[in-house]
Amino acid sequence: MARIAVLIGPGFEDAEYTGPARALEDAGHTLVRVGVEPGEVRGKHGEKATVEKACADVSMNDFDALFIPGGNSPDNIRRDEDVVGFAKEFMMSGKPVLAICHGPQVLISGDAVRGRTMTAWTTVQKDLELAGADVKDERVVVDGNLVTSRGPDDIPYFIDASLELLAQAGPADRGAVGAEA
Amino acid sequence: MARIAVLIGPGFEDAEYTGPARALEDAGHTLVRVGVEPGEVRGKHGEKATVEKACADVSMNDFDALFIPGGNSPDNIRRDEDVVGFAKEFMMSGKPVLAICHGPQVLISGDAVRGRTMTAWTTVQKDLELAGADVKDERVVVDGNLVTSRGPDDIPYFIDASLELLAQAGPADRGAVGAEA
Repeated sequence: MARIAVLIGPGFEDAEYTGPARALEDAGHTLVRVGVEPGEVRGKHGEKATVEKACADVSMNDFDALFIPGGNSPDNIRRDEDVVGFAKEFMMSGKPVLAICHGPQVLISGDAVRGRTMTAWTTVQKDLELAGADVKDERVVVDGNLVTSRGPDDIPYFIDASLELLAQAGPADRGAVGAEA
Repeated sequence: MARIAVLIGPGFEDAEYTGPARALEDAGHTLVRVGVEPGEVRGKHGEKATVEKACADVSMNDFDALFIPGGNSPDNIRRDEDVVGFAKEFMMSGKPVLAICHGPQVLISGDAVRGRTMTAWTTVQKDLELAGADVKDERVVVDGNLVTSRGPDDIPYFIDASLELLAQAGPADRGAVGAEA
């Protein structure tokens, strides 16, 4: 099963974290919450999450996949260069990246969406397009090892596609599927 | 004096609205709050503002200038096509546009920043760059009739530059200064 980094910070969209997190753990995957600095962060509606490690203190090599929930969290944490660099390394490695709603904002900051087919929260779709992505206004878009969804209404679709991708990408070849030169 | 549209919605950064608004009114300008729909909206820290008109029901021609405060408001309101179109018309008209912090997100959605020299909140600077703007990480940037600042710490500089621009651009030639083909 996969060891998944959850990139999270203050103002996350509660259900976009709790829903997928529960489903990923129920499927047997291990989650480690990472962000700007260790400590408790609150969602927009009061849900709590504990950031265990700062991105500055972990390596992409420690994980098999990356999950980025939405809300205000992505814009809050993308101010940190280590957060942006960490996410960008996942995109370059070809390991599974699961991002929903405003999550792709972190990838835009790393200039890591050029040429990728993906979606995001309605207002972020234009940002993605201008950053060179091929944007689809769909519930879930799978491009190689990149899974993206638009928002809270799409969570079930996001979960299904994410679990399917993680099941396909075994530990051995995880990182190779969808990898780009 | 100028009749200024204030483009605002839920989650505005309180001081970025109240500070410039007070200074603009003290200088004799008239403010009209416009947005997605009429009604009261709250700032991130509880300040109230009343949206008087929906962008769908006003015209750029009714105003001499546009002011866009930051916070979560710009991302919340740029989901509305009339809001984005209204702001874009100002950029095309050459009338003064004053935007601070996340304010330029509305302009990005209208693909209206290409070739412009400007700034924004740290995390939005990359979005601006990818949208074709020439980004400066400075307290205030003036490019023709476009005044932009980074965030709350820069409010005094934003106010000074905005008042100076409005004083220069008299009612007669307002709209001509800095206008682009």
